[in-house]
Amino acid sequence: MSGFGLDQRLARDSELVATLDLCQLRLLKDSRWPWLMLVPQRDGMSEVFDLQPLDQALLTFETNMVGSALKKVTGATKINVGALGNIVRQLHVHVVARSEGDPNWPGPIWGFGQAAPYEPSRQQEFMTQLVEALSS
Amino acid sequence: MSGFGLDQRLARDSELVATLDLCQLRLLKDSRWPWLMLVPQRDGMSEVFDLQPLDQALLTFETNMVGSALKKVTGATKINVGALGNIVRQLHVHVVARSEGDPNWPGPIWGFGQAAPYEPSRQQEFMTQLVEALSS
Repeated sequence: MSGFGLDQRLARDSELVATLDLCQLRLLKDSRWPWLMLVPQRDGMSEVFDLQPLDQALLTFETNMVGSALKKVTGATKINVGALGNIVRQLHVHVVARSEGDPNWPGPIWGFGQAAPYEPSRQQEFMTQLVEALSS
Repeated sequence: MSGFGLDQRLARDSELVATLDLCQLRLLKDSRWPWLMLVPQRDGMSEVFDLQPLDQALLTFETNMVGSALKKVTGATKINVGALGNIVRQLHVHVVARSEGDPNWPGPIWGFGQAAPYEPSRQQEFMTQLVEALSS
């Protein structure tokens, strides 16, 4: 694997939860929704179909593992998965737990309002729960 | 495969383009963006991770094949892929061609404004171009 550099905006807006085989798993610094992001550790990719076939399969595996764990931890109504990248071109996949009545439900989370930072101990607790659900 | 029934709202809002190994490929009746949808022909699924592992791999393959063809046909700046399902729970994956300056760019397409129907010959032409790009 060649060097991997994380986009500065993605780095600023999120916190590293775990390093998986392909992706960095990161938590968005926005407590309005339980909102994770997977960033494949490959440079120069902006579309999922830019990845090598094996990496495409790994990304699917990791996205589904994370989505399933996130649903378990949060008890959410629906997991929303999205790869948009209209603003930040480095390939990243959002995995978000949605529940009836949450901000902008049933609309999308992207481009809606302003981020609401976590209370630090709550953020740490949530990250710990996620790591536990991923290892079980 | 057991019987497959397409959700009535998905059926109403879109047109069948092709039947792939796993999914129906459908075009949304909304000319504001080149907007496709993949619907796995499996009943009772609402999350990607509900699918059997082989179906998860097939869905990834078909999503990437369609995304790549859509980018080729449209020359779009960015392909947006999303599986939300907050309104219609039957599993479906959006694949949308986005270009700078299109409606709500760089925000998401979901929940934005009202659909603008295609001029019928334009819709037919676009579907033909897609099928050609998928077979090449």
